[in-house]
Amino acid sequence: MTDQSKSAVPAIGVFDSGFGGLTVLRALIEQLPRARFAFLGDTARLPYGSKSRRTIARYAAESAQFLVREQGAEFLVIACNTASALALDAIQEAVPVPVLGVIEPGAEAARAASRTGDVLVVATEATVQSHAYAAACRAQGLRALEKACPLLVPLVEEGWTGHPVTAEVIEIYLNELRAEAAALGMNPDTIVLGCTHYPLLRRLFEDAVRPGAKVIDSAEAVAQTALGLLNGRAAARGTVQETEVHCFATDSVEKFERLGSRFLGRPVGHVELIDLGG
Amino acid sequence: MTDQSKSAVPAIGVFDSGFGGLTVLRALIEQLPRARFAFLGDTARLPYGSKSRRTIARYAAESAQFLVREQGAEFLVIACNTASALALDAIQEAVPVPVLGVIEPGAEAARAASRTGDVLVVATEATVQSHAYAAACRAQGLRALEKACPLLVPLVEEGWTGHPVTAEVIEIYLNELRAEAAALGMNPDTIVLGCTHYPLLRRLFEDAVRPGAKVIDSAEAVAQTALGLLNGRAAARGTVQETEVHCFATDSVEKFERLGSRFLGRPVGHVELIDLGG
Repeated sequence: MTDQSKSAVPAIGVFDSGFGGLTVLRALIEQLPRARFAFLGDTARLPYGSKSRRTIARYAAESAQFLVREQGAEFLVIACNTASALALDAIQEAVPVPVLGVIEPGAEAARAASRTGDVLVVATEATVQSHAYAAACRAQGLRALEKACPLLVPLVEEGWTGHPVTAEVIEIYLNELRAEAAALGMNPDTIVLGCTHYPLLRRLFEDAVRPGAKVIDSAEAVAQTALGLLNGRAAARGTVQETEVHCFATDSVEKFERLGSRFLGRPVGHVELIDLGG
Repeated sequence: MTDQSKSAVPAIGVFDSGFGGLTVLRALIEQLPRARFAFLGDTARLPYGSKSRRTIARYAAESAQFLVREQGAEFLVIACNTASALALDAIQEAVPVPVLGVIEPGAEAARAASRTGDVLVVATEATVQSHAYAAACRAQGLRALEKACPLLVPLVEEGWTGHPVTAEVIEIYLNELRAEAAALGMNPDTIVLGCTHYPLLRRLFEDAVRPGAKVIDSAEAVAQTALGLLNGRAAARGTVQETEVHCFATDSVEKFERLGSRFLGRPVGHVELIDLGG
């Protein structure tokens, strides 16, 4: 795309290492139905979780630059917990537009929801090891207990989002978390779904938590925060008559197209393969 | 290591993209208790399953060369289904020692076990998409029906190898496979565990199959074949008093050390981090 088309149709850029971030895009579309969105999944280089901070920063910065320079993004949402935890500063330095990560909005929503000040966070192994949610919650005056739930992403990708096996796995994980919280003298009343795959399990989590406990869908929290930050920008005012979504991936377009629609809640359509280099 | 130490202590090299291949090493140790083994997990570059054939061939050849040149391997076992399916020729061209993959021995063991000539194969998505087992079974005069079981690797890595949830997931996958086999008019009596993680689920599979049906553990099948091929080589005759195992990885040594012992059935000890380049 040329600079002309860029200024003509401003967009909101959404970035993830895979396609899980489509749940964040879905929540954004609900808030901003007349915007043009460009989503990039850096599927050739996932998983980010096992890579070094420096490598992740370089990958994420390259992806952000693609969205801004080639797709005219005037606002970026980093819909990837690993990149949000480890590379938000590097991404912000790499592009001249505002950048919003996925972690702080989740922590802010948890503060608004919790009465006891104690929250639980479920996420992937890599996100938990970064302790980014614990730090963001601490900054909000909350105590957070984090737990890695490595079975949940594969269960979602298998399509078992309402399956009894998945409900049982969630129950097991939550029981372990509650026992650990009790041992620490915590009284949690809020649980943050700290992985972009987990919004598809929101119903099962809501069924599994105790009455009165709140489930924070971080995709929804990010979309709410984005709405406030976008205030006044062309992309947010609505640059197109209907929602426009353009999806790009660096590999595995077939899996993206096959599974992505379930995450987005609408057809992802054609996913364009791009090359960001090694 | 120098050439001197190389010739002084011949070894059997075992290669995988991760550490699942430790189940193959375990089976090899049972057959060859006085050998020196060098195991390399190319953990920095996994998963191989989502990469192109050319990239996989390059990665696997580099890993094979490390085992032969640096570790004195005089025989190589490729304990990785993806590399066996897509890069066995490339690996054999890259090193001057015999190379054994993990797929043909599984198919041969299935032929020996099956009376009906119809077999089921469970494996990862990438292995199933390569249809390498179907081809190897066809070469043995068998009809094979393959199924991807993407939840099983995470269940094994979570340590749920005897868990009721895992038994339930296996039951669901097997029921789907049986229904598909029946629709195709097949009468399977043998199931091949076509992933190096699955030997840890052998007991659950044996409980789940119908009476009389056989479960082929491909790790065990590979070890049997290796024993025959190694006949007369120094490494096989026993070069050390007790089993010696040296493990190398290209990344994530912590996870390798933490989970590896469960796969190997003995402590993996110190895992040395090596750099094979990009």
